[in-house]
Order: sequence, then C-alpha cells, then structure tokens
Amino acid sequence: TPSLEFELTRRQVGKGVQEMWWYTCDQLRQLKKKVEGNSEATAQIEQVLEEGLDHSRVIQFDMTRLSKLDGLGTWREQEAADLSSLVQRRLHDLQNPPDCSKARKLVCNLNKGCGYGCQIHHVVYCFIVAYGTKRTLILKSRGWRYNKAGWEDVFQPLSQSCTDPTGNTHSHWPGTNDTQVLDLPIIDTLSQRPPFLPLAIPRDISERLTRLHGDPAAWWVGQFLKYLLKPQPRTQEMLDTLSDTLGFRDPLIHVRRTDKVGTEAAFHSIDEYMTHVDSYYSTIKLSQPDVVKRVYLASDDPTVITEAQKNFPDFIFIGDSNIARSAAVATRYTDASLKGIIADVHFLSLTDYLVCTFSSQVCRIAYEIMQSFHPDASGYFRSLDDIYYYGGQNSHNQRARIPHTPRRSEELPLVPGDIVGIAGNHWDGYSKGVNEDCPEGLYPV
Amino acid sequence: TPSLEFELTRRQVGKGVQEMWWYTCDQLRQLKKKVEGNSEATAQIEQVLEEGLDHSRVIQFDMTRLSKLDGLGTWREQEAADLSSLVQRRLHDLQNPPDCSKARKLVCNLNKGCGYGCQIHHVVYCFIVAYGTKRTLILKSRGWRYNKAGWEDVFQPLSQSCTDPTGNTHSHWPGTNDTQVLDLPIIDTLSQRPPFLPLAIPRDISERLTRLHGDPAAWWVGQFLKYLLKPQPRTQEMLDTLSDTLGFRDPLIHVRRTDKVGTEAAFHSIDEYMTHVDSYYSTIKLSQPDVVKRVYLASDDPTVITEAQKNFPDFIFIGDSNIARSAAVATRYTDASLKGIIADVHFLSLTDYLVCTFSSQVCRIAYEIMQSFHPDASGYFRSLDDIYYYGGQNSHNQRARIPHTPRRSEELPLVPGDIVGIAGNHWDGYSKGVNEDCPEGLYPV
Ligand SMILES: Nc1nc2c(ncn2[C@@H]2O[C@H](COP(=O)(O)OP(=O)(O)O)[C@@H](O)[C@H]2O)c(=O)[nH]1
Ligand SMILES: Nc1nc2c(ncn2[C@@H]2O[C@H](COP(=O)(O)OP(=O)(O)O)[C@@H](O)[C@H]2O)c(=O)[nH]1
Repeated sequence: TPSLEFELTRRQVGKGVQEMWWYTCDQLRQLKKKVEGNSEATAQIEQVLEEGLDHSRVIQFDMTRLSKLDGLGTWREQEAADLSSLVQRRLHDLQNPPDCSKARKLVCNLNKGCGYGCQIHHVVYCFIVAYGTKRTLILKSRGWRYNKAGWEDVFQPLSQSCTDPTGNTHSHWPGTNDTQVLDLPIIDTLSQRPPFLPLAIPRDISERLTRLHGDPAAWWVGQFLKYLLKPQPRTQEMLDTLSDTLGFRDPLIHVRRTDKVGTEAAFHSIDEYMTHVDSYYSTIKLSQPDVVKRVYLASDDPTVITEAQKNFPDFIFIGDSNIARSAAVATRYTDASLKGIIADVHFLSLTDYLVCTFSSQVCRIAYEIMQSFHPDASGYFRSLDDIYYYGGQNSHNQRARIPHTPRRSEELPLVPGDIVGIAGNHWDGYSKGVNEDCPEGLYPV
Repeated sequence: TPSLEFELTRRQVGKGVQEMWWYTCDQLRQLKKKVEGNSEATAQIEQVLEEGLDHSRVIQFDMTRLSKLDGLGTWREQEAADLSSLVQRRLHDLQNPPDCSKARKLVCNLNKGCGYGCQIHHVVYCFIVAYGTKRTLILKSRGWRYNKAGWEDVFQPLSQSCTDPTGNTHSHWPGTNDTQVLDLPIIDTLSQRPPFLPLAIPRDISERLTRLHGDPAAWWVGQFLKYLLKPQPRTQEMLDTLSDTLGFRDPLIHVRRTDKVGTEAAFHSIDEYMTHVDSYYSTIKLSQPDVVKRVYLASDDPTVITEAQKNFPDFIFIGDSNIARSAAVATRYTDASLKGIIADVHFLSLTDYLVCTFSSQVCRIAYEIMQSFHPDASGYFRSLDDIYYYGGQNSHNQRARIPHTPRRSEELPLVPGDIVGIAGNHWDGYSKGVNEDCPEGLYPV
C-alpha cells in the first residue's frame, strides 16, 4: 500500500506536466498572433507545438506506466473495489431499514423543473442529505416529465422494502432529528445548508479515498449514481440491443448542446472537440500503434454526426442520430427521449476519455459514473469550459503550496498556506481564483 | 525494494521533464532572434522563459520528493552502502592476495604524459583491467611529474602486502592467463581491447546497480576512485586545514580551463556557468527559501574568482586563488600544484551540484567521486559541453523506445528497437547520434 503522500505527489507530477504543457501551448498560440506575417517564426512555432506535445505525451505515458508498476496497479484495483462495496453496502442498509414504519425518512421529489441530468443530480443531492442525516430516501416520481409512469418504469426502486413516504411526524427541512419524515427542497432554495453537501466526502473514508483517487468528490457522487441508476430489465435490454446495433466498443466521446448555447454556455465547434480527441489518440498510439480511432458522439443536435463524419474521415463515429433527434427541445420530455438520454449517458460513461463541456450536467454525470468503472478516472476527460463542480456546491478552496509573485497585473500574489477559492481553470496553465486580499486573479496551476 | 522497471520509469519521467524544458527553452531563444524588433513578442518570450522554468522546477521538486517517499529514500541509502562495500571488499581482496610472490599481477605506470585528471583516469583504466583479469594492480609511480617521490607521498599505497612488480613470467598485454606479470599500455594504444572497458559494468551487480543509479558506469568508475584516492595523513591534514580556512560547506561549483581553450575545448564565460548555478539555487529555494548562495570556484585561471565576485555580488564565492595560480601551465607539475588539484577535486566532489565542462577530466573525476557520496547523484551536474564519457571507452549505444519521424533534414528517423551510437547531448531536447542507416543526425532525448 502506497502512502497518501506518495500518491498525492505522484498525481501532482502528472498534473504538473499537463499544466506546463497547456501553459506553453497557449503562450505559443498567443505568440503566433503577435508575429503574424513573419513566416519563419510562425513555422517554428507550429513545429514547437507539435514537438512539445510529443515530449509531454511521452512523459504522461511513462507516468501511467509508473502508476501501475510494483503492484500499485493491482492495489489500486482492489482498493477501488473495496471502497465501492463498502459504500454500496452502506447505501443498501440505509435504504432497507429493519422496520419501514418506524424508519426516519427524507422525501425528495424527482420532478425538479429541468433536464434529465439536472434532475438526476437533484436526486443525488437528496440522497447525500439522506446519508448525512441517516435517513432513508423516499423518491416521489409520479408524473415525471420524462415518463409519467415514474422512476420505476426505467430504473429499479431505491429500496426493496421501504418506499412509503408516510410517518408519525412530518416537517420541512431542517425539522429536528426526531421528526420521522422530512421534506427536502431543491438545493437552490435550501436554507441551513449542512456541511456534507458536495464537494464534501465522508471523514471516515477520506484518507483512503484521497489516496486512491484524484477527484474524491466526483467518485463519491458516482457511488450514489451507481446505486441509483440500476436499469430495469427492459432498460437493460434496450441498452444491450443498442450496444450491438452501434457496434459499441472502447471508443471515446463527445457531447454538445443546442438550447444552452448562447444562453448558459458558449458555442464550441466540432473541430474544437476533435482537436482533443485527436490528441488523446496520439498518446494511445505510443502503446497501441494500430488503434482504430472510434468516437462515440452524443448530442442533442442530429446534424453533428453528419458534419463530423464528413470533416474527420479517419475517425469512426458511433452514435444514433435518432437519439439526437429525440433530444431536440420540442420532443425532449418524452419516453423516447428518456431512453435516448439514458443510453447516451450510459455509453459516455463507458468510454475511456470524455471530451465535453463540464458546464453540461449530461457531461458531468457521465464523468461521475465513469469513476465507478476505473480505479481513478479523474484525469480521463477534457472539458472545453468549466472544471468539475456540483450545482449548488459549498465553496471549493485550494491551499497554496508554492509562493507566486505576479508578473502581470491580473495575477494573484500567493504565499504558501494561502486559501484560494477556485473560480475555474483556464486550461492554459492558469486558474482563476479569489483570496482574502484580492477580489480575483490568475495563478499558475 | 522497488523493481528495476519502476526505478527506470521514475528516472525516465525526471529526464523527460528536464529534456522537455531544455527543448522549449532553446526553441524560445531561437524564436527570440527571429522576432527581433517586435518588442511585444520579445517581452512575451522573456516571460515564458521565466514562467516555464518555474513550472519545470516545481515538477522536478515533486519528483525528488517522490523518490524518497514510502521508504524508497531509506532503501536507496542502504542499497548504495551495500553495493559500495561489496565492491570495496572485492578490490581490497584483489589488492591483497594471500601470497604476493605467487600472485598474478598487472603493472601500470602512472606517468602517462598528461595532466592529473588524465593520469588518474589512466590508473582507473589499469585497475579496471586488473579487476577484469583478476590480477593485482601494481602501480609504478617513481618520478611522477607532479611529485618525484611518487604516489605514496600523497595517497595510501594500493596494497598493504603486495606492491612488488616482479614475478616468474613476464609479458606485455595481452599475454596469457598464466603469465604472472603483465605490462599494460595506455588505453590509447591498447590492442585486443577487452569487453569490460568503460562504460561496461560487471554483470553480477548490473541489475542492482541499474536499478539504483542513473549512471551506473560513472558509479563504477567512482568506486575505483574511492579505493585509489585515500589520502595519506599529511594530505588529509592539508584538506582539513583548507576546508576550515575556506569555510567550506554545502556549496556548488565550477571549473574552468585555460590551456585547453581554443584547442581541445571552446571558451565558456563565467556568466554561462552562473546561469546554471542560479537556476540550481532557484530550485533549492522552493524548499529552503533562506538558502545562502555559495559557489566553490575551481579554476586554473586566478582572475576568474575576482571576476566572479565582482559580477555576481549576491553569491558567496569560495576558492583559493593560490591554487588557481599554481595550476597555471608554467607551474603545473609541482608539488604545490598537485596539492591544489587534489584539493579542488576533493571539494568539487563534495558539492551538491557540479557546473562544468565534461570535456575536462578534472570535471569528470569530480562527478565520478561524487557518485560515492550519494545514492544517485547522476543528475547533480550540468555540463556545458559533452555528456559523460570515459576517454578511450567502448562505443556508447542507446536503443530507441519511441518512434521518431524527422521534421527537419538533420534529424534521424527511428523505430523502436533501433540502436543509436550517441555522439552527444545538445542540451536542447536533442541528442546527436548515428544509426545503421544514417551517418549522423539529431533525435529527441
Ligand atoms: N440524448 C441526449 N440528450 C441530450 C444531450 N444533451 C442534452 N440532451 C437533452 O437535453 C437535456 C439537458 O438538460 P440537463 O440534463 O440539465 O443537462 P445540461 O443542460 O447539459 O446541463 C438533457 O436532459 C437531455 O434531455 C445528448 O448529448 N444526448
Ligand atoms: N587546481 C586546479 N588545477 C586545474 C584545474 N583545471 C585544470 N587544472 C590543471 O590542469 C590539468 C589539466 O589536465 P587534465 O587533468 O588532463 O584535465 P583536463 O585537461 O581538464 O581534461 C590538471 O591536471 C591540473 O593540473 C582546476 O580547476 N584546479
């Protein structure tokens, strides 16, 4: 068993190499604009962008090898399995109390007024509060906007023995410890926020989890999803059939949105996604020269698949344009659309690498579920916008390790020990953050 | 105990980060020349050179931490001590045969017509041949150009019991296995070269040594130097006194040459040395913010110390201009000069980091001895010219691990498994080498 510090340091090196390359890459692109017209300089910059990437790839490849040597790979697999079964057992026990009529309960209504990804995250939030307050979660899902018949029509019930929302005493959150049944509002309007909301993880497994995993918060959410999203036989059949039809195996991915673009999120072209997909495959080629470049494409825009196939003929695109069509805003809240999004999330989470926008809940859910399929898949993604977060989370802070003296006015001065609230990663070697002294600024990652 | 592969991979990552930075750095400097006059671009390049260095430094700092965690540091110390005492015991046994009159001997004459460093390397070469042929090394040193009284006037004899060069049968190299006394010529004129000449290491310790050390050949040579260069009490006293006078502790270093410049080696200014010294101290500052920047300066040019002190006032320079003066060509082969070079090599080898030219034997000897003071000091240097080599060595080959497709005409195409004879590292991310198909070319390190 490696020590916590060993694993943290090992991951720190991997991250350092990644961020160093992102930094260099972005600076070179800026430089290219500044020397426009100077063809000699432009050509050299192009070349450094390619060769620098080669260098960083070989280092990452070696880091991956290192993480598996000397039994570390086997240890990681085993530890991940042990931690997951520990948590799954706890959730099972919580949901199956000895006597449902006496059990303390938390009631949650699935029908938050938003999309599938958002609703699933809403249920996870309820479940986390249930776990934190040691209550059995009762899910109300009758009249669900995606399927009137409710949750159990597609997923297995959350309990074999306890789904009855009644009890002797009843109150709204927060109530008291003795209130038997508590109604939980959505996270957006929650008052008296408990400390165990995301991105928190339970103290009693925090050391093991932090040692094992690069993103413990996402792993923790993923465990709730693992418990929640158990398909009914009919749903499973649908997934199996689709898997066969599509010829799904080992590809990677991409999501893209229509209705959000321009309002909540910026537009990202398919080319931008494919740059990262291509880069991922170049790394894979170091160990598998003959790899077939497959891409699972999930979208709510059916034209994306056609466009991609036309512009990137050396990739094999897998995806169902019927699913994308049904995901369009007009037909979104239908049974067919529900099947589509369930399938897309399922396949996305099965890929080896996600390229998507973390501003999208669909993308984040896939990432969270993905964590339960690998010992540590915290690095198996590239987000085109945000870093990982959980809607309504408590504030996300980092502690400075290395002093930083700003070289530009928009940078944040840091001394070791400083607490910084992260506002985002710019994927160019800098993160944006706030600390006590400064309203906002950039600092090297 | 870590596996061989684990240690090789760990070191590979450290090297990768180093070479990636050297590559980027050199490319940026070239770019700067191309965009001269464009002040915006030049300013950005300056900034990237600083910030990129910060990034690479933090990664190296983490790599160093990683190499010591989880008992790896303790293991490394112990393994280094064990291997060294194994080899020292073997050398002691070789040099102290049960019956000197019957012992098989190899006779070596110290007085090769060259400088101290070169002569010491000559003795090491003799000793390696003695080890390889299981003969006791007999060193002839009467009339030594540095000290007429010979080796034993400054260093301890190579044997307590067997220094007599006579025997029943006598021949020049290679003779036969039964010839009792063999005379060995200098390496430059050696015919029938045995396979165990540097950079070879003994097979029976090769796995342990390759796991422990990043430069096994230098470690191996260092073990012979450790055995050979045991000072006589008077020499030790001289070193102790000098250490006190100079106030020697924990600094780093620099050598520089006069007579070679322009003939065998190119001139390197003190500024060039100091760039690397400065860079080393910046890394140290990450863990020791208050470090005092000391530099041990060894040179055969007494003006260097004055020049350095004037131009780099924030460093403390330690060094004896009397030593440098005595090292000048006119007074080089004198007793005072010998004391000076013994002291310089001694102090250089005690530093934490060497900045010098590996074209110089003085510099390489310091590097070799340094290896016996640390578990793995193979990275504790920066050579301004050559990579490490041993004069007269057998060819130094590398095997390609990653395919390389040339992007410029001067590059070498490589496929995994290709054997490349290394001609040198350009310290810019490229090495020069030759392979079967191509006379010479560059390839990424
Ligand atoms: N099948 C499918 N549906 C999608 C996709 N992207 C968006 N949708 C639909 O649009 C809804 C978006 O709402 P939400 O789940 O809140 O996710 P977000 O808007 O991406 O944060 C989803 O629930 C789906 O119904 C996709 O890639 N595939
Ligand atoms: N004391 C002292 N002597 C030096 C130094 N550099 C060169 N010398 C003298 O110059 C000689 C150089 O010859 P050699 O040992 O073959 O080394 P190389 O020329 O550096 O390869 C040394 O043996 C010394 O006598 C130095 O830094 N300090």
